[in-house]
Amino acid sequence: MTPATVPVPSRSAKTPTAASLAASAAAVDGGVLTNAGVAAWLEDRRRAQAQRVERIPFAELDGWGFDDLTGDLRHRSGRFFSVHGLRVSSDFGPVPTWEQPIINQPEIGILGIALRDFDGVPHLLMQAKSEPGNVNGVQLSPTVQATKSNYMRVHGGSHVPYLECFRRPEQGSVVTDVLQSEQGSWFLRKRNRNMIITVGPDVEAGEDFAWLTLGQVNALLHEENLVNMDARTVLSCLPDWRAHAVEAVHADADIRSWITRRRAEHEVRVTPIGLAETGDWNVGATEVAHERGQHFSIVAVDVASARREVRAWTQPLLEPHGTGLAALFVRWPGGVPHVLLRARAEPGFVSVAELGPTLQCAPENYAHLPPGLRPAYLDEVLARRAGAVYDVRLSEEGGRFLHGQTHYIIIEVDDDLPVASDEFRWVSLRQVDELLRYDHHLNVQARTLIAALRSL
Amino acid sequence: MTPATVPVPSRSAKTPTAASLAASAAAVDGGVLTNAGVAAWLEDRRRAQAQRVERIPFAELDGWGFDDLTGDLRHRSGRFFSVHGLRVSSDFGPVPTWEQPIINQPEIGILGIALRDFDGVPHLLMQAKSEPGNVNGVQLSPTVQATKSNYMRVHGGSHVPYLECFRRPEQGSVVTDVLQSEQGSWFLRKRNRNMIITVGPDVEAGEDFAWLTLGQVNALLHEENLVNMDARTVLSCLPDWRAHAVEAVHADADIRSWITRRRAEHEVRVTPIGLAETGDWNVGATEVAHERGQHFSIVAVDVASARREVRAWTQPLLEPHGTGLAALFVRWPGGVPHVLLRARAEPGFVSVAELGPTLQCAPENYAHLPPGLRPAYLDEVLARRAGAVYDVRLSEEGGRFLHGQTHYIIIEVDDDLPVASDEFRWVSLRQVDELLRYDHHLNVQARTLIAALRSL
Repeated sequence: MTPATVPVPSRSAKTPTAASLAASAAAVDGGVLTNAGVAAWLEDRRRAQAQRVERIPFAELDGWGFDDLTGDLRHRSGRFFSVHGLRVSSDFGPVPTWEQPIINQPEIGILGIALRDFDGVPHLLMQAKSEPGNVNGVQLSPTVQATKSNYMRVHGGSHVPYLECFRRPEQGSVVTDVLQSEQGSWFLRKRNRNMIITVGPDVEAGEDFAWLTLGQVNALLHEENLVNMDARTVLSCLPDWRAHAVEAVHADADIRSWITRRRAEHEVRVTPIGLAETGDWNVGATEVAHERGQHFSIVAVDVASARREVRAWTQPLLEPHGTGLAALFVRWPGGVPHVLLRARAEPGFVSVAELGPTLQCAPENYAHLPPGLRPAYLDEVLARRAGAVYDVRLSEEGGRFLHGQTHYIIIEVDDDLPVASDEFRWVSLRQVDELLRYDHHLNVQARTLIAALRSL
Repeated sequence: MTPATVPVPSRSAKTPTAASLAASAAAVDGGVLTNAGVAAWLEDRRRAQAQRVERIPFAELDGWGFDDLTGDLRHRSGRFFSVHGLRVSSDFGPVPTWEQPIINQPEIGILGIALRDFDGVPHLLMQAKSEPGNVNGVQLSPTVQATKSNYMRVHGGSHVPYLECFRRPEQGSVVTDVLQSEQGSWFLRKRNRNMIITVGPDVEAGEDFAWLTLGQVNALLHEENLVNMDARTVLSCLPDWRAHAVEAVHADADIRSWITRRRAEHEVRVTPIGLAETGDWNVGATEVAHERGQHFSIVAVDVASARREVRAWTQPLLEPHGTGLAALFVRWPGGVPHVLLRARAEPGFVSVAELGPTLQCAPENYAHLPPGLRPAYLDEVLARRAGAVYDVRLSEEGGRFLHGQTHYIIIEVDDDLPVASDEFRWVSLRQVDELLRYDHHLNVQARTLIAALRSL
């Protein structure tokens, strides 16, 4: 029932203020756990969650197989995800048409971080979690990573800790709840809820969990392959705790209009096809691979855990080829921070185009293209990389990607850097903050870089 | 090129202020044309654009035909739109699965209204435009209604007047530019750009066009079948010129979270199928119809114009059965205006659910369902209709729908009206205004009602 008469304030007293978030960001040590305590906890969790991951032929997958008719790779239960083919025609990039395998997982899961006040300072409940595709086992993850199968089909108590806090948050306790895309080159129309909620003192940290300040999490964002992709995207959706001037290079309406126009005037048509009929891709005994070895492969792994209660399982993973490169240019016209974003089309996006980093590519994939087709700003990024204010190799989601890593780079540039084309706009951080409140405006790589930028 | 150093104000001086829009809304007569002049202009345009529309068998369509393999109805050029089948499974409503024909028009068109100051008062450039499906020929339409075929494939001068103002608006002149859905029960993933831009004194009104104040357009919204659907949806995306308190029954984050949750937890799966294999629907010589005569039919018409330069053409139209009902409850808790919106799933929506009116239905379609499955609030709307503050029959888009009409009703209710379920929320008009800046949050019927509510 709706309250009958008296409106409540638009921002509930329960959600953190910018000032309390700023205090949390300023708390770079101490809090509930010292930094030394965090390191010891992570080391302990690495031992407890030790995993053995081995590549296996597809024939040794348990419950997974290729469909006789379409060649699609799917689980016999119809659950989890499937890998089929996609025929793409696009007027965005240098390649007008292609076919590729793609992961189809139509369910919307929850990625959530719980906030709790300790002495007035909000702390984030972070999880030490291993995933089979991680290069290093355990990474720092959100409070909850749950697929819809996890959270809808479980009756009488969930085996996903803290899930109920997110499924039925108290009125006024929601800080952020927004649908965000994931890699549009690897997932077809994948979206997850990115949630941040506040919880009361009754919520305590289990052994795989720890309460960290925002300052501690921000510091850990500078360590290689530590803060996982799901944690980074949720962090980016936390309202910016720093005050930013209203002034911007482009009016808000002009930024929205640019996004709308890029979505309306350009076309990406995608047609699902059978994996078996996907041109240029071959299905072998151990991998589905591009005939030139580019882009990625689909492989299979067998996973065994040191924890007695977790049984071994097998699953397919997407193995990216080469390390990705995602770079963001930042500048301060009139003292106001702006980032240079590119309207990108990726075939799996729900709405044609989203804003990506200044540069996002897997350099290896451009080797067969003429030099004139190198991505805009690739040379500038490589030339200026030595002076980058952020340059950290981070992992993509280890539940779907095998050893997927990207170099995330932030570079400060001068005001005289030319804007390459209509695909690019300088967007202020206040504008970024507002765009992140609404579904799928920034892609997952840009969201990692926004979280990283706020950590500086 | 981006300006190098000095940020411009977030709201350019060129776009109208709330005060100037309020002045335009207050100007209920006079302006460039008196109300008598507007009536005379519309009457003159009705004579000039007289149309003859006749139903014909599908066999007499020129360039359109049923595909031999799928039975889909399409144009031989591949342009315009097609009608195919859709298999739907949904956990939203009383009917879990069904099949239906649906219009597929994947291109994104432009619906735009130009604003120009006369003596400091913004005027809207409205068009008198006839469409074959209109019950009364000419209706008041936006400055531009252009399909993407219109606006992308035309070289060296456009035959759509004023189109270039919208294709390449000056920096700072965009008031609104957002993708909005259209009828999700009749269109598959249809979206149009809803644009409002300001233009300078060099833009003049051609003979099918007139400069009206917002007050004049608002008054015409109270006339039956006069302001067309495209004009109404663009008007709803005009920023609200009335100041509204920040206070609201639900916090902004809670409203966004509710929309996200309805999209994430509920499922609507749609599979395109051939029109020939669409269950319960039969293809005859003159119509594609449901076997119980419900919902709508697909028919064909021959159109001839009195204007010499416009040649006759033939096209399919969707003919809704029965007059729709769309009702909005409004109340003022604490003096702050709120409307009761329902999160609705329609199979053609891009993102599962959008916010619709309190009640939206075609009452005839519920005749075969048990009384307990009548839509929520149908009885309340019928009981309170005599006291409605707005009750006008308006047309749906006459370029695609034959004589599609809906009774649009706004009813003031007391604070003790119970909220029927989690599908409903009281949303403040300030919150509505913000949601309308971002793609597809309110459906097309709700947008008409918001435009109507602002006209009161």
